[in-house]
Amino acid sequence: MVKVGIIGSTGYAGQNLVWLLSQHPYVSIDFLCSHNHANIPFSNVYPNYQGFIEKNCIDIQSGIARLSKIDILFIALPHGKSFDIVEKALKVGVKVIDLGADFRLNDPNVYKQWYGLDHIALNHLKSSVYGLPELYRSTITKASLVANPGCYPTATILALSPLLQESLIDFSSVIVDAKSGVSGAGRSANIPNLFCESNESIKAYGVGTHRHTPEIEQELSKVSGQDMIISFTPHLVPMNRGILATCYGSLTRHIDEKDLNQLYKDFYKNDNFIRILDSIPETKWVKGTNLCDIGLRIDNRTNRVIVVSAIDNLMKGASSQAVQNMNIMCGFDENEGLKLMAMAP
Amino acid sequence: MVKVGIIGSTGYAGQNLVWLLSQHPYVSIDFLCSHNHANIPFSNVYPNYQGFIEKNCIDIQSGIARLSKIDILFIALPHGKSFDIVEKALKVGVKVIDLGADFRLNDPNVYKQWYGLDHIALNHLKSSVYGLPELYRSTITKASLVANPGCYPTATILALSPLLQESLIDFSSVIVDAKSGVSGAGRSANIPNLFCESNESIKAYGVGTHRHTPEIEQELSKVSGQDMIISFTPHLVPMNRGILATCYGSLTRHIDEKDLNQLYKDFYKNDNFIRILDSIPETKWVKGTNLCDIGLRIDNRTNRVIVVSAIDNLMKGASSQAVQNMNIMCGFDENEGLKLMAMAP
Amino acid sequence: MVKVGIIGSTGYAGQNLVWLLSQHPYVSIDFLCSHNHANIPFSNVYPNYQGFIEKNCIDIQSGIARLSKIDILFIALPHGKSFDIVEKALKVGVKVIDLGADFRLNDPNVYKQWYGLDHIALNHLKSSVYGLPELYRSTITKASLVANPGCYPTATILALSPLLQESLIDFSSVIVDAKSGVSGAGRSANIPNLFCESNESIKAYGVGTHRHTPEIEQELSKVSGQDMIISFTPHLVPMNRGILATCYGSLTRHIDEKDLNQLYKDFYKNDNFIRILDSIPETKWVKGTNLCDIGLRIDNRTNRVIVVSAIDNLMKGASSQAVQNMNIMCGFDENEGLKLMAMAP
Amino acid sequence: MVKVGIIGSTGYAGQNLVWLLSQHPYVSIDFLCSHNHANIPFSNVYPNYQGFIEKNCIDIQSGIARLSKIDILFIALPHGKSFDIVEKALKVGVKVIDLGADFRLNDPNVYKQWYGLDHIALNHLKSSVYGLPELYRSTITKASLVANPGCYPTATILALSPLLQESLIDFSSVIVDAKSGVSGAGRSANIPNLFCESNESIKAYGVGTHRHTPEIEQELSKVSGQDMIISFTPHLVPMNRGILATCYGSLTRHIDEKDLNQLYKDFYKNDNFIRILDSIPETKWVKGTNLCDIGLRIDNRTNRVIVVSAIDNLMKGASSQAVQNMNIMCGFDENEGLKLMAMAP
Repeated sequence: MVKVGIIGSTGYAGQNLVWLLSQHPYVSIDFLCSHNHANIPFSNVYPNYQGFIEKNCIDIQSGIARLSKIDILFIALPHGKSFDIVEKALKVGVKVIDLGADFRLNDPNVYKQWYGLDHIALNHLKSSVYGLPELYRSTITKASLVANPGCYPTATILALSPLLQESLIDFSSVIVDAKSGVSGAGRSANIPNLFCESNESIKAYGVGTHRHTPEIEQELSKVSGQDMIISFTPHLVPMNRGILATCYGSLTRHIDEKDLNQLYKDFYKNDNFIRILDSIPETKWVKGTNLCDIGLRIDNRTNRVIVVSAIDNLMKGASSQAVQNMNIMCGFDENEGLKLMAMAP
Repeated sequence: MVKVGIIGSTGYAGQNLVWLLSQHPYVSIDFLCSHNHANIPFSNVYPNYQGFIEKNCIDIQSGIARLSKIDILFIALPHGKSFDIVEKALKVGVKVIDLGADFRLNDPNVYKQWYGLDHIALNHLKSSVYGLPELYRSTITKASLVANPGCYPTATILALSPLLQESLIDFSSVIVDAKSGVSGAGRSANIPNLFCESNESIKAYGVGTHRHTPEIEQELSKVSGQDMIISFTPHLVPMNRGILATCYGSLTRHIDEKDLNQLYKDFYKNDNFIRILDSIPETKWVKGTNLCDIGLRIDNRTNRVIVVSAIDNLMKGASSQAVQNMNIMCGFDENEGLKLMAMAP
Repeated sequence: MVKVGIIGSTGYAGQNLVWLLSQHPYVSIDFLCSHNHANIPFSNVYPNYQGFIEKNCIDIQSGIARLSKIDILFIALPHGKSFDIVEKALKVGVKVIDLGADFRLNDPNVYKQWYGLDHIALNHLKSSVYGLPELYRSTITKASLVANPGCYPTATILALSPLLQESLIDFSSVIVDAKSGVSGAGRSANIPNLFCESNESIKAYGVGTHRHTPEIEQELSKVSGQDMIISFTPHLVPMNRGILATCYGSLTRHIDEKDLNQLYKDFYKNDNFIRILDSIPETKWVKGTNLCDIGLRIDNRTNRVIVVSAIDNLMKGASSQAVQNMNIMCGFDENEGLKLMAMAP
Repeated sequence: MVKVGIIGSTGYAGQNLVWLLSQHPYVSIDFLCSHNHANIPFSNVYPNYQGFIEKNCIDIQSGIARLSKIDILFIALPHGKSFDIVEKALKVGVKVIDLGADFRLNDPNVYKQWYGLDHIALNHLKSSVYGLPELYRSTITKASLVANPGCYPTATILALSPLLQESLIDFSSVIVDAKSGVSGAGRSANIPNLFCESNESIKAYGVGTHRHTPEIEQELSKVSGQDMIISFTPHLVPMNRGILATCYGSLTRHIDEKDLNQLYKDFYKNDNFIRILDSIPETKWVKGTNLCDIGLRIDNRTNRVIVVSAIDNLMKGASSQAVQNMNIMCGFDENEGLKLMAMAP
């Protein structure tokens, strides 16, 4: 039985993590921290847990005081908030899975450039592992600090890695047009996220400036072996959950659709959570799961390949990927607690 | 291991039943019948099941031919379609859980009046049991044919039974104003259920004429011990799932809210799936679960009690209640395969 | 040309009022006040107005300073905020249409009881007129201060008045189960109104305690000639706009549906914005209009009548009704600027 | 007063055209044809028109028989259905605005290739004019047959024309990632368009094969002066209305964002319905209008320009653009009947 604590347990990703961990056969939750809801029953904040989770939320300091009682700490906080906590956890031998952005970018200068903050935990940054199991499974096994990937990066990197590894597309040609449900904006009370503001409309945002861009570029560069710069445009879609990433690249050589489909299947042959489809994915078929669905088309007219991937932003894009990482770090079956099918409709 | 077959497996309720049964630890699915999708992989109709369920759908005749290989048959067909199938199943000793309406009304004349059909399986009607475990658990244990309750009746009967058993309200005063998500209308292609027709609007329908009315009245009458006639008005709400039943009754004697709340808790003290809240329920907190949340208020100004219940129409209102019935019939733990929390948001 | 000012112009109702007034042939807008957006172009707050409305918002004090330049002042503020403004406007001979709640309840004790505030403009309260043109057209003609009705009261009073005037229902039997789109909650940034919190769910709220209850009772009592107490339960529906009020009453004598329909048509024969339907209304058919659709059914089984009314909460439930009142006060054609059909889908 | 007839008046675009024409000051509607709803009151099909439009729908043959009584015929039918009708109308001197696809592609071979049909009105194809007023205003003035543009082409061509005319982007680099509300799929009863199938999900469709592709290429080629081939990927978004087109191109020379913004403003300086924004557009701000909002960003990192345009697919993407064309053909003020602001929220 692994003992865990969660800091940031009442944000959308955090509470989804609680949903998963509370049902995991080998996990015991020691504490749930929430800045906004300290000393309130967790199931008052999220009544779906009534009758299932009886714990009160505690404040972050109280959580830190209990670090010695746990094996793994999950952090789901806004960027810039985890440096100190990570330091304290690692010091007492607690492994950390950070769902935030602070340890995803290897280069602290890039971090500063996009997040506007100095990185003040450089030693831990060096030893941190980017927690995308499909690419880094063996390293994650030995990691003490895992930086759980962002939602858009997860969908994008999984969609493009096979193409890049085979140098099948011009590395400078990559355009990623991504669409996310509103839960990606978090649970903070602000006007643009009100029902009446988001409903019945679609918009692009952060055009050319979204913070997931350098994260995507870092990882795609590692796969391709060259420094890559991409266009990334996120959009907000009036639905609760889901990310669809539509990725474009110019083919460097001829390949037919069937062979490319097979190449993807081969690339992910050891990965239970990737489904290579013949059709084009829809987000609803992966909702509430750790799955990433991928479909692709070759457009001979334009000599481009279009790869479309779909994930649940709060699951494979956050909480269930964190559990997948935990499973790997703890030597559990990677699927443990994650054998989830979407519920239709 | 119990072997089951499902007839009507590609409707919304039917496929949700497949979702549940495919994950049930003591169940093995023998066949999935679908009139519209025979000989097509089930996971082509519902791609969420890709990688999980590899069976093809078969036609109903092929399903009937396999009756001897199963222990329990689930039927999820429109009314009037199950008479013959039930007959054949029971004959070969297969127990039946019918999610349709054909065996819910004890009086065949009432069936004819509201459904416009002669009931042609009167002998089985007599032995059938109304599958609401909270009221009929012990009878369900021994049943061969269980009539799984309708979605609106489930929400309504659970909301009102404690009041009626205690004669706390005037039996002629009951008004039920219910609201359902669009999945309640099924998966048939017709214009009123198109996205653009249902979205951004609410309407009442079947005012005074909905077929769930006599089912509700039959069961409320049994609880109260008197023939009851109620007002029942269903509404269509632009959301996929969920039923909220707002029930009104005139108090026959004074009781304060706290005591009434306790009375409800006592009434359902052996029922794991009923949550008596201090607050007023919302459908989202029971989505994807077998739970029924109930909240109540006494309005001293009008001397009325207002009881609000929330269920997932496809789950406690159909498929998960069917599994609950199966668990009881098979002597399994009643919670088996049903320990489900709603996923937020 | 009538010169108007609007205080509270950037709330949902306020800006919808601007939408209407800016297109009204006989109106010139002098100023738009907004507490939160003072000195910002109105069309920055609502980009739909870009190219149409070039004014900056001004603060409330600046608006008050311009009272002498206008003929009519519209106020769309939370309750308790308009006492002082009304005083100042009336003093300089400016007529006022208050979309807030401060002048709707004739009895200041009832106001205090439900709103928790002392009413500090009692003299103006006495001379104020309840702005429901279908009931008070002639009085509105001469009014200096019109209290524009609440959204739920508008839908409910219009649905029930013909029945009450004819004493066709038991006055103590009235139950109103109402459903509103999320815009009814206003544009303030709070968590329950976030997209992910309101979407895909329905809930009741303010059961037995909603502040529109005494307003409804006051007006129904006037129509019926007796003090009436009703049950009123509002619900929140995941859609932007619309109110559906489902109203129940016990018939005091037999009447058939056709005759009752005719009685409603007669009652509203001079009212252009009331449509008495043969069918049951849906909110989408009145969206963006000043219409109130009414449909009714007699349920002989229960001896109850069910009347369903549909309005757009921001229009007939707020802004377009305010314009209708203005038209009457100014002697314009009552339909001026209000000949609006819903746009489908 | 111009007399018009509409064939295909009960589809989503057709009925929106009726909405517009019925309020147009210089238009009198002679007939409304509907294959599915002949001899039924138009306002039975769309109850929003109750009290406003009293006409019955007539069948298409009856409409054709009345051609001599009208000046302009609007056709809103599926492709392949208008050849014969156009022939008959033009023969008797009736001008035609075809909202369908049959006269948009100048090359009948391209038509055959993408639509799978022989074009059997080649003479009229030659004289037809592509009805995008911002590009072809003067030709439309004299046209007898106007091919009203498709919804995606309208949004795309308006977004890219200024760039192409100035050769600011590599013509082979154009990628258009477009998102549409569900009304774009029309009002036919099929399962993928059911509420529960479209709601809470996003998908790409017709990847590399959508029929609007050659239409976009034809028009972009005319503007650029070279044969262009583009990538075009449409997506389905869970909302009723709206198209957002996110367009990517590689810059051929340096230009800064401010200058490019000005270049767009200059390009469209005579076009009342184009709004060049500083921000990035959202579909809600153009809903229910003839507007096209355009915003743009230069991404110096990738040397790409991203242009985002937003229209209402049923309005500027269909019906209101048809009215704009009619205004031009008839010599009316181009804005007549089209001075529409979006209603928020």
